[in-house]
Amino acid sequence: MKRIAESTVRRLSLYLGFLESRDRDGTGTISSDELAHLGGTTSAQVRKDLSLFGSFGKRGLGYSVSELSRHLREILGLEKEWKVCIIGAGRIGAALARYPGFAERGFIVTAVYDRDPSKVGKKWENLMIRDVADLERDAAKEHFDIAVLATPAESAPDTVRRIVSAGIKAILNFAPVQLNVPAEVTVRAVNMAIELEGLSFALSNRER
Amino acid sequence: MKRIAESTVRRLSLYLGFLESRDRDGTGTISSDELAHLGGTTSAQVRKDLSLFGSFGKRGLGYSVSELSRHLREILGLEKEWKVCIIGAGRIGAALARYPGFAERGFIVTAVYDRDPSKVGKKWENLMIRDVADLERDAAKEHFDIAVLATPAESAPDTVRRIVSAGIKAILNFAPVQLNVPAEVTVRAVNMAIELEGLSFALSNRER
Repeated sequence: MKRIAESTVRRLSLYLGFLESRDRDGTGTISSDELAHLGGTTSAQVRKDLSLFGSFGKRGLGYSVSELSRHLREILGLEKEWKVCIIGAGRIGAALARYPGFAERGFIVTAVYDRDPSKVGKKWENLMIRDVADLERDAAKEHFDIAVLATPAESAPDTVRRIVSAGIKAILNFAPVQLNVPAEVTVRAVNMAIELEGLSFALSNRER
Repeated sequence: MKRIAESTVRRLSLYLGFLESRDRDGTGTISSDELAHLGGTTSAQVRKDLSLFGSFGKRGLGYSVSELSRHLREILGLEKEWKVCIIGAGRIGAALARYPGFAERGFIVTAVYDRDPSKVGKKWENLMIRDVADLERDAAKEHFDIAVLATPAESAPDTVRRIVSAGIKAILNFAPVQLNVPAEVTVRAVNMAIELEGLSFALSNRER
């Protein structure tokens, strides 16, 4: 399969979001124009994005909402379940462990780790906090698909080395650091502070 | 002032995060090597990023942690206060209104809006939920700097038109949509679902 740009994958997620909400409304078909409008792009781009994965929709009839939703869920890997471990049992980790959107989408949190001895062994949302020193050993048995990195910046580089050496190929990064990982590991980052600071930078420089 | 790339601004945020944590530890100086290591980049890149904004640090002595922190806060616009309005009084909006990190960084939430008549008028964390129909009128008096968009995808395009026509120049977007805005408006997005789906896509395509 050829390499698909990150921006394309993001648009597929957006399309799927709209399709699912239309499906709940009972809409039967949707045009590429309408998908384009909702996704902030052009209908040519929608057709190009979808054509990467096969042939969907009928000329002049648009796409079947339920069918295209199912295809996109499959393309995005959302028809499977993924085993997720959270590393860092702090404020962000706690919010994530409670977040219902994870399991709804097939992302099942099966383990939580921390390096603080005063936290290890405590119960946390049905899971016991484990020692991060055991990550590699546990991963060999439990085959985590995705590691959620929710540690402070300082311990992130060490933790990432553990994650990589545990053979985990996908990281969702909440730590305010740029991660160095081998090419076969995919990283996506979520960082509200950095986004906010980008806005205040833009506002400040506008006013100079 | 010349146009600074978004990737540069992100690195400045990362550097500042490290510097502030070092400052709390009482570290006096830091080398560009160390900043580079923490930021996942090279010392040449660190020097280049900082040189865009003036001359910092002494050859062979490194950077003064407290001084460089102060400079970066100023560059990033964090020495001022910014007025923030949250639009969308749902789950995400509620979490954001309670988030202490906003005010700590000078982002002061001064208003919350929704379009649902059953929510408008209710008290919410010391603020009363206002009708989004009043956004333009209120903004003319209260001069919001940043709008946090926390509506469902469906109402996002309409809401963005209101935000733009209210003269607000910065948007933090939590809605799963690509926003169309004029060039003078800066948008940054935070979307955990899209990042997670990017990971499951990468994992699925690896296994085919």
